[in-house]
Amino acid sequence: MINKEEILQAIAGDLERIEEVLQANFSSYVPFINEVSQYILFAGGKRLRPLLMVLSARLCGCQKDTAQTYRLSVLFEYLHAATLLHDDVVDNAKFRRGRKAAHKLWGNQAVILVGDFLYSRAIRIAVEEGNMAILDVISRTTTLMSEGEVLQLINCDNVELSEEEYNEVIFRKTAALISAACEVGAIFAEKASWHRGKMREFGRHLGLAFQITDDLLDYLGVTQETGKEVGNDFKEGKVTLPLIVALERATPADRTRILSLIRDEEPTPQTFQEAVKLIDRYQGFEYTRRRAEQHIAKALEYLSDFPESQTRTLLEGISRYVLVRRH
Amino acid sequence: MINKEEILQAIAGDLERIEEVLQANFSSYVPFINEVSQYILFAGGKRLRPLLMVLSARLCGCQKDTAQTYRLSVLFEYLHAATLLHDDVVDNAKFRRGRKAAHKLWGNQAVILVGDFLYSRAIRIAVEEGNMAILDVISRTTTLMSEGEVLQLINCDNVELSEEEYNEVIFRKTAALISAACEVGAIFAEKASWHRGKMREFGRHLGLAFQITDDLLDYLGVTQETGKEVGNDFKEGKVTLPLIVALERATPADRTRILSLIRDEEPTPQTFQEAVKLIDRYQGFEYTRRRAEQHIAKALEYLSDFPESQTRTLLEGISRYVLVRRH
Repeated sequence: MINKEEILQAIAGDLERIEEVLQANFSSYVPFINEVSQYILFAGGKRLRPLLMVLSARLCGCQKDTAQTYRLSVLFEYLHAATLLHDDVVDNAKFRRGRKAAHKLWGNQAVILVGDFLYSRAIRIAVEEGNMAILDVISRTTTLMSEGEVLQLINCDNVELSEEEYNEVIFRKTAALISAACEVGAIFAEKASWHRGKMREFGRHLGLAFQITDDLLDYLGVTQETGKEVGNDFKEGKVTLPLIVALERATPADRTRILSLIRDEEPTPQTFQEAVKLIDRYQGFEYTRRRAEQHIAKALEYLSDFPESQTRTLLEGISRYVLVRRH
Repeated sequence: MINKEEILQAIAGDLERIEEVLQANFSSYVPFINEVSQYILFAGGKRLRPLLMVLSARLCGCQKDTAQTYRLSVLFEYLHAATLLHDDVVDNAKFRRGRKAAHKLWGNQAVILVGDFLYSRAIRIAVEEGNMAILDVISRTTTLMSEGEVLQLINCDNVELSEEEYNEVIFRKTAALISAACEVGAIFAEKASWHRGKMREFGRHLGLAFQITDDLLDYLGVTQETGKEVGNDFKEGKVTLPLIVALERATPADRTRILSLIRDEEPTPQTFQEAVKLIDRYQGFEYTRRRAEQHIAKALEYLSDFPESQTRTLLEGISRYVLVRRH
């Protein structure tokens, strides 16, 4: 099994090329747009989505010019950045990746519009690639993503949310894009439906595990490591899997207590700590971690249908890393 | 020359088909999205952009299935509606088409995300059409549009804005989409670059005239007719052509007075009325109206290169109507 240092070493070259293209390929007629975009694009993102597209293409035996591969891959980072910008306004987040959220610096209005610009830029890159199958995946995905964000918003404070409904939300808001990056890699490599289907499913399970782990970190992470405020979801009434499990399993008395903690208009660190304890009492975190592990197991299963290779080992390593990451 | 009643009669059939497709073609997995979209889509819009695409295709001798034409045309209404939603948040407008602005009913967050959904839906329709030349125009246009919105935002309160800079803003935020609708009509009719170029330029001048007239109506319109608050731009410090002209021509004393009126933190109807008088003293409205007329004259010139036909007469009539419209 490949360890974290080996993963980082193996992807260093790809990440460098992705950074280059992100910098070079991006520019607007309006300097202010460049300023805001720079801020959100170069805030220490992991470049997971472009990287997954590049590696998926390679796994599928892509023979194409590598410059073209990297150029296409950054559209997934632009789409992701656009979502972050609109999401921050929606969530009213104060921090993102350890720095002030963009809307706190430039105001909601500017941030919405720069998000629109990045979104347009992403579509533009896909159009320039000139591949209708890729455009088909991208345009389906962006529709799913916007539906996911709306679903999340209207389910705020919905303590009746089921695990199934939660899965629908996180598929749309997170897994769909990661799945699309992997599927587009296969399409770009000019592979037929067998490869496309495998990569799409691999990406879907990886994306689900990724978001479930994210939701777990919101309870159990450390701000210095995640770059986000811990307990943010809870304070905002965002109902995620640990809470769903606890609410389902709790005694009537504990359930009532958890509900009153969520509905506390002025939550303190103590409120949050008490909620963490109660969720833990009903193995909410354990159950959630297990779900993430199951998704990674399925993701690995899809990879195992490909012949062994360095790229496959790397994708396996990245998949496992999703479970242990701390930010 | 065709009069208003004759125009309305001639386009009634097309408008009916456009309404049908708008209703039928639109649906999200998320009922809430449908609710907000319905509100913005069926608030008495003029359907100018879909109509222009349909008529442009017809002018260019389009032989295709009409169902397909209408299906494609509504993407321009979706894009327009998405812009309205994000624009209302940005402008913080209270009214739109005589009804409460969507964000006042559902909150900024929901409205941003439904805007994203409509935008995705528009791109999806273009992808389903499967024509790369059309996608090329659309993806260029959405980039221009988001740049235009940002430019408008950062130029708020910029009393040094020149007429040239103003033209850049209104081209991007309004004329680009109208121009795209006309150009896509020509592409859809499978016409080569001569037709495309003519229709693009026709649409560009029509769009510029449209926005200039809009900016004029913000000073001289009547709320009951426009469905918007008159004086909104002025109150928000949006610098449009009548003001640019007045500021350029005014005596130092009058210029100082106009500036103090714009900067008034608590403007009253009297503040606005005084500004209107001062702008009028320097023929700001006359100059603006003349500019709109010049753009319409150019638009008509581009049409005159096409053989005479009922559709050409209709497009000429619509162009002239832009100048006299009151909402």
